[in-house]
Amino acid sequence: MTLSPRLTALADSLPATVPFVGPEMQERQRGRPFRARIGANESGFGPSPAVVAAMREAAVDIWKYCDPENHSLKAALAARLALSPANIAIGEGIDGLLGLIVRLFVEPGQPVVTSLGAYPTFNYHVAGFGGRLVAVPYEEDRESLNGLLEAAIREKAPLVYLANPDNPMGSWWDGGEVAAFAAALPASTMLILDEAYCETAPASALPPLDAERPNLLRLRTFSKAYGLAGLRIGYAIGAPGTIVAFNKVRNHFGVNRMAQVAGLAALSDDAHLEKVVSDVAAARERIAAIGRANGLVPLPSATNFVTMDCGGDGAVAQSVMQALIARDVFVRKPMAPVLDRCIRVSAGPAAELDIFEAELPAAIAQAQSIRPKL
Amino acid sequence: MTLSPRLTALADSLPATVPFVGPEMQERQRGRPFRARIGANESGFGPSPAVVAAMREAAVDIWKYCDPENHSLKAALAARLALSPANIAIGEGIDGLLGLIVRLFVEPGQPVVTSLGAYPTFNYHVAGFGGRLVAVPYEEDRESLNGLLEAAIREKAPLVYLANPDNPMGSWWDGGEVAAFAAALPASTMLILDEAYCETAPASALPPLDAERPNLLRLRTFSKAYGLAGLRIGYAIGAPGTIVAFNKVRNHFGVNRMAQVAGLAALSDDAHLEKVVSDVAAARERIAAIGRANGLVPLPSATNFVTMDCGGDGAVAQSVMQALIARDVFVRKPMAPVLDRCIRVSAGPAAELDIFEAELPAAIAQAQSIRPKL
Repeated sequence: MTLSPRLTALADSLPATVPFVGPEMQERQRGRPFRARIGANESGFGPSPAVVAAMREAAVDIWKYCDPENHSLKAALAARLALSPANIAIGEGIDGLLGLIVRLFVEPGQPVVTSLGAYPTFNYHVAGFGGRLVAVPYEEDRESLNGLLEAAIREKAPLVYLANPDNPMGSWWDGGEVAAFAAALPASTMLILDEAYCETAPASALPPLDAERPNLLRLRTFSKAYGLAGLRIGYAIGAPGTIVAFNKVRNHFGVNRMAQVAGLAALSDDAHLEKVVSDVAAARERIAAIGRANGLVPLPSATNFVTMDCGGDGAVAQSVMQALIARDVFVRKPMAPVLDRCIRVSAGPAAELDIFEAELPAAIAQAQSIRPKL
Repeated sequence: MTLSPRLTALADSLPATVPFVGPEMQERQRGRPFRARIGANESGFGPSPAVVAAMREAAVDIWKYCDPENHSLKAALAARLALSPANIAIGEGIDGLLGLIVRLFVEPGQPVVTSLGAYPTFNYHVAGFGGRLVAVPYEEDRESLNGLLEAAIREKAPLVYLANPDNPMGSWWDGGEVAAFAAALPASTMLILDEAYCETAPASALPPLDAERPNLLRLRTFSKAYGLAGLRIGYAIGAPGTIVAFNKVRNHFGVNRMAQVAGLAALSDDAHLEKVVSDVAAARERIAAIGRANGLVPLPSATNFVTMDCGGDGAVAQSVMQALIARDVFVRKPMAPVLDRCIRVSAGPAAELDIFEAELPAAIAQAQSIRPKL
C-alpha cells in the first residue's frame, strides 16, 4: 500500500507483520487461557524474591525517568564479568540491541549471514534496514560453523549471527570451537554471538571473554534464567570502540527504570540464579522423559527448553503442536525445513509439566488420527 | 572514528552523544543528590495509588513477555478517545515513536521541519536517519505556525514537527489554529503533533480528534500527567493506514509488561489525573510567584513546567541555572538563542518548591556576582 504522505521506499516494501503471535493473542482467539505457558522460553520459575521486593519498592518512584547512562547496571555487570563499563551497552532486550546493531553495520543491499531457521526477530531487523539475508542450513541440528564461515567470507558480509546455545534447537558448540570460528572470520565481519541461554549452558560452551576483539559483540539477557522477560533488558559485550557506537543510535531513555532496578537486584541474588539453573536442568530431564514415553525423540539441550523430534515431517509436528494448544498447553515449534519436524517445550514448574504430561498422549493420538505417519 | 568492521556511512557520520545529561549523572558528578528534582518535567506528584498497587501485584509475573499487540491498553485508549484500536499505536514513550516515524517517512537527505530550540530528541532521530533539519525560529516564544507552514511547503518536507503545548517554552496555540495549520499543510507532509502536555493544557488548546486524517499523527504519553516517565509508554493516534505502518518497523516486544499494566491502571483512575492537573496548576502559580518575587518574568504555561525569563542573555540564565544546581535544585533551560534567556522549572510537590523558593534568591545573587547584567 502506498500512503500519502509517502513511506520511504524501504518502509513501503516491508510487510506490516508481527513476527511472533503471542500467547495472549492465542488466548483471545481461543476465548480461554492456557493452563501451561511453556512455549516462549520464559522462566516460569520466576524472578528472584529479592527482585520482586525491589520492584515493589521502586513502584512509587516510577514518575522519574530512568538514568540514560544505565550507570549502576553497567557497573554491576562490569564487576561481575571483570570488564570495564566501557565494554557494555544496555538495551531493550536482545531484540532491541539486534535492531541497533543491524542499523549500525548494514547498508541497504548488504548481505547478512545467519542460519536457516534461526531467530526470526534478527531476520526482521535485517529486512527492516534493507539487508539481504543469507541463510545457511543447520547441520545435524546445530548451526553450521563451517557453513557460516564460508558464507561470511564468500559474501563479504558485514554481519554474521550465531546463537550459542542455539534457539530453536537447544544445541550448542564447545567454547573452543566458537572461539576458533570467531578468529577465522574476516576482520571486516562483525560476529553477533547471541548468548541468551548462556546461564543454562555447560561452562564449556562459553568461549573465554575476549572483550577487546573489535569484530565480536556478545549479547546476553535478563529474559531467560533471570526471569525478567517482561522488562526488556539485554546487554552487549564488546570492545569499547564498538560499544560507544550504540550511543549514536540508541533510544537513550529506552531502558525503563524498573528494568534497571530489577536487573541490579537480580545480579545480587546468585542463589536464585543457581536454583533456577538447577530447576531448568531437572525440567529438561522431565520434558525429555515425557517425550520419550510418548515416542518423541528429545534433542540434547543447553537452554531452558527441549526440542523434540516428532518422527515425521513439519506437518506432523505442526499437528502435535496444534493438538497441545487445543488442550490449553502453549508450546511452539521450529518453522524451517528439517528443523520443523520438532516441537519445542520450555522448562517450567512441575505443575505445568504435569499438564503437559497429561495432555501429550491425547495430543499425539489426535495428531495421528489426522496424519497416521507418526 | 572508523571501526573495522565498518559502520555504515551514515552511522559513521553521527556523533556518539547522549542528548540529555540526566540528573543521576549530575548527582554522580556532584557527589551528592539533588534536594529538588524539578528539571525534567517529570511528575513529582507521582503515579496513581491504583497504578502502584497494580505494579506491585504484577511484579511476580514479570517473567512473562509482554503482549506484543498491546491489546488491552489499545482497547482502553480507544474506548477513552472514542476511536478504534486501529487508530492507535503504542510505543516506548514518545521518544521511541518519534524514532519510528522518522524511520518510516524520511529518506536520507530529505528535509524535516521543526522549530529552532524545540525537542532535541526529535532532532537526534532526524539526524540518525540522515534527514536534514530545517529549523524555524520561534515567534514571541511560540512555535511559528506560519513559519512552519511556509518551510514545509518550500522544502516539500515529508515531516513537520509541532509540539502543542510547547516544550521548552510552555506556550500553546488554540486548537482551531492548530487545525487550520494541519489543514493547510500539503497532503504529502505528515504533521507530527506532539501533545505530551495535553492533559495540563486548556481544553481549547486541543483540536478536535480527526483520527482519519492521513497526514496527521498525534503523540501522547503516560510520562507527564500520569507520572509514569520511568516506564516508557507513549501512543500515536492516526489513520489506520498510517498506524499499521508501525508494524513494519517497531520492536514488537518493546513495550514492557509493567508499562502495559500501569498504563491500563492509570486510565482507570481519573480522580488521580484530575488531582494532578489541579496540583500542577497550583504549582505553576507558585513557581511564577516565586520567580516574580525574585525579578524573573514567568511565561504563561499550558504544561507541567514554567519557563521564566531571567532578563538577560543566555549566559545570565545559564548562571542562574548553574547556581541553582550548585544549591541542589535540579532545573533545566532552553538552549537555542532568544529562548535561552530563560530557565525552566517543573511543577512539583510543595516541599520541593519550598527548596526552590529558599535557594532562588542566593542563586540569582551568585549569578549577578558573576554577571552583573541581571
